[in-house]
Amino acid sequence: MTLIQEKVQQAIDILQQQKIDLWLTFVRETSGVRDPALDLLVGPADLTWPSALMLTRQGGKLAIIGNLEKESLERLGVYDPILGYDTAVRDLLRDTIVRLDPQTIAVNTSRNNVHADGLTHAMYEILREHLAGTPYADRLVSAEPIINSLRGRKTPEELARIREAVRITDEIFQQTFDYLQIGMTELEVADFMQAQVRTRGLELAWPAENCPAVNSGPNSPVGHSGPTDIRLERGHLLHFDFGVKYEDYCSDIQRVAYLLREGETEAPIEVQRGFLTIRTAIEKARAAMQAGVTGNAIDIIARDIVTGAGYPSYPYALGHQLGRVAHDGGALLGPLWEKYGDSPNLKLEVGQVFTIEPGLAVPGYGYLGLEEDVVITESGAEYLGSCQTEIVLIER
Amino acid sequence: MTLIQEKVQQAIDILQQQKIDLWLTFVRETSGVRDPALDLLVGPADLTWPSALMLTRQGGKLAIIGNLEKESLERLGVYDPILGYDTAVRDLLRDTIVRLDPQTIAVNTSRNNVHADGLTHAMYEILREHLAGTPYADRLVSAEPIINSLRGRKTPEELARIREAVRITDEIFQQTFDYLQIGMTELEVADFMQAQVRTRGLELAWPAENCPAVNSGPNSPVGHSGPTDIRLERGHLLHFDFGVKYEDYCSDIQRVAYLLREGETEAPIEVQRGFLTIRTAIEKARAAMQAGVTGNAIDIIARDIVTGAGYPSYPYALGHQLGRVAHDGGALLGPLWEKYGDSPNLKLEVGQVFTIEPGLAVPGYGYLGLEEDVVITESGAEYLGSCQTEIVLIER
Repeated sequence: MTLIQEKVQQAIDILQQQKIDLWLTFVRETSGVRDPALDLLVGPADLTWPSALMLTRQGGKLAIIGNLEKESLERLGVYDPILGYDTAVRDLLRDTIVRLDPQTIAVNTSRNNVHADGLTHAMYEILREHLAGTPYADRLVSAEPIINSLRGRKTPEELARIREAVRITDEIFQQTFDYLQIGMTELEVADFMQAQVRTRGLELAWPAENCPAVNSGPNSPVGHSGPTDIRLERGHLLHFDFGVKYEDYCSDIQRVAYLLREGETEAPIEVQRGFLTIRTAIEKARAAMQAGVTGNAIDIIARDIVTGAGYPSYPYALGHQLGRVAHDGGALLGPLWEKYGDSPNLKLEVGQVFTIEPGLAVPGYGYLGLEEDVVITESGAEYLGSCQTEIVLIER
Repeated sequence: MTLIQEKVQQAIDILQQQKIDLWLTFVRETSGVRDPALDLLVGPADLTWPSALMLTRQGGKLAIIGNLEKESLERLGVYDPILGYDTAVRDLLRDTIVRLDPQTIAVNTSRNNVHADGLTHAMYEILREHLAGTPYADRLVSAEPIINSLRGRKTPEELARIREAVRITDEIFQQTFDYLQIGMTELEVADFMQAQVRTRGLELAWPAENCPAVNSGPNSPVGHSGPTDIRLERGHLLHFDFGVKYEDYCSDIQRVAYLLREGETEAPIEVQRGFLTIRTAIEKARAAMQAGVTGNAIDIIARDIVTGAGYPSYPYALGHQLGRVAHDGGALLGPLWEKYGDSPNLKLEVGQVFTIEPGLAVPGYGYLGLEEDVVITESGAEYLGSCQTEIVLIER
């Protein structure tokens, strides 16, 4: 069974659980705007003309597609029937939906999860027009709950790939700590790390501009900006945010080192205190994670540890899901801020993979953040790799 | 001046010509769903939180963005002011628009051009809600005409990159014709071509599954399906569809060869007749192309030559625009079929780059299609590379 066959079967199980009659993914020219649901429904190929992929609660797997792309869709061994057309999709689409007579049609529109939000406004309007004069135009609902579960619940194969991405990331961090020296620039260190990824024939987990992020010292701009010409100096905290993509699945890990000053054998006490605070916040969050708990409840646990120790609240969520992209959607370990929509209120499910990534600034030294990747299991949450439990000390 | 600075300035000129007060690109988590307008507005970087890029007719270049991404946006040297936020975008966005007081706000929604259709349905609804209680929610119009012109009108730098992509593609075709031998499979030939692209450190112009398409003989599935295990045999037409991406700009070229049978010194007369028909259709189409003519008028010229010679009408458009993607949007050299929307009725503009790619099947031999890339100039249309004017004959 291919991964796509496995995920499509899982999608049909989810339709049954959620009592949705039809999940309709309606797209066109996906080299331009690509519905993220396609990765699990057809793989990396692009569809050129208006196309519809339809999964039903009864187990139906139908596709409507331009004739020139029928052959490549058939090769997936997923859809049957595959209805091809040359000039106009409307009648074929309408007739097919009339024949299926669904009470609810889930389409890919979502306020909370961008990965369930592949239907553009114009395509939504076109779809409604195609269905005009039937009862079906008014039966459209959001496919967000379907896609949240489908992307979130990792199959054993998906989980194995993420574990391998995490393992490789750990390995590259180790190589980097062996390689780096006082006086190098952030950019030089980042180049080394990217070269390790290329050597392995892999891709970065997010765009190269800020993968890895490398921040040395208190003046390095933290956030989603990339590494700079700032040089690694003694007395700097050195912070990394980095991930790789292994067979389409990502890791996302933060590590931190301290560049020892002459005569120092350990990090200054305020750096150690920051590290312990973050490490504790991560471990307490992980220990509380289990299916059925909201992501917001977990965010609060970690955030309270950081603010309770006297540090400011970090202006981002504690953690996000991880999968085919580094920032996967659905349930979020986040605060109830407008920009996060309803995602922090969603409950954790078995099979979801999350990052846990609180952070703080140590004045005069730099940014201190750690990020670990965990999977929700029947009994709680497990780390997917080796955690950083001590600050890395650099002497060279 | 960077390419992004150049294109943003061009966008403001277009706003003035089209008398649009504000062009608003409203996005979030673009690693998930990426508005194609971003390539020209910010480059390859992704924006994580709800973000707004605003260009005004008066030359204003404003951005609203999550604080953690402010720094990297500043580095572009394009937007000023850049307004950052931590938790909620709504008030900042609404207040900024109220202050600008635009009569028209163009947003990225389009029925005809997927590259002008980056606004999802949910983001459209969120935007209208953010503007609720102001007059601005009802001033939204489609940015399609802006984006059509902006993507279509290539700057000298953009054109230079496409020319280089075309030159490299020609070169790889030449290497391929020197390399291939009777008895190889389509997949082996495709692997060779992809290796030539990798050797040059370039990317393919579209996904590797069918870039190149390689079709040998009458039983090879034509269309957007990829190469197969079918072997190159004497008496086959061998057809290629292939392109590379050079510094973000694409080529898209089709070539055709004939595999000589024992004793043959030229292609059979029916193959030659097919070749001449296609070659004539391309040249007549190019000769008729000029600014102000509709793409549909050009499609008719080529299509009539093919059908007038007794071949069936090919079930696709004569040609599409070419740029950052192989299938760029806007004006299309196409028939008035529903699936193409209004694009065939749009008029050609100076600076646009088009493919011209009619095709036909020669019964018993295989598919015969050619594709040339042309640019619209003040005086007509020019080929961007060397055309195929004779069928390539393979003896080995």
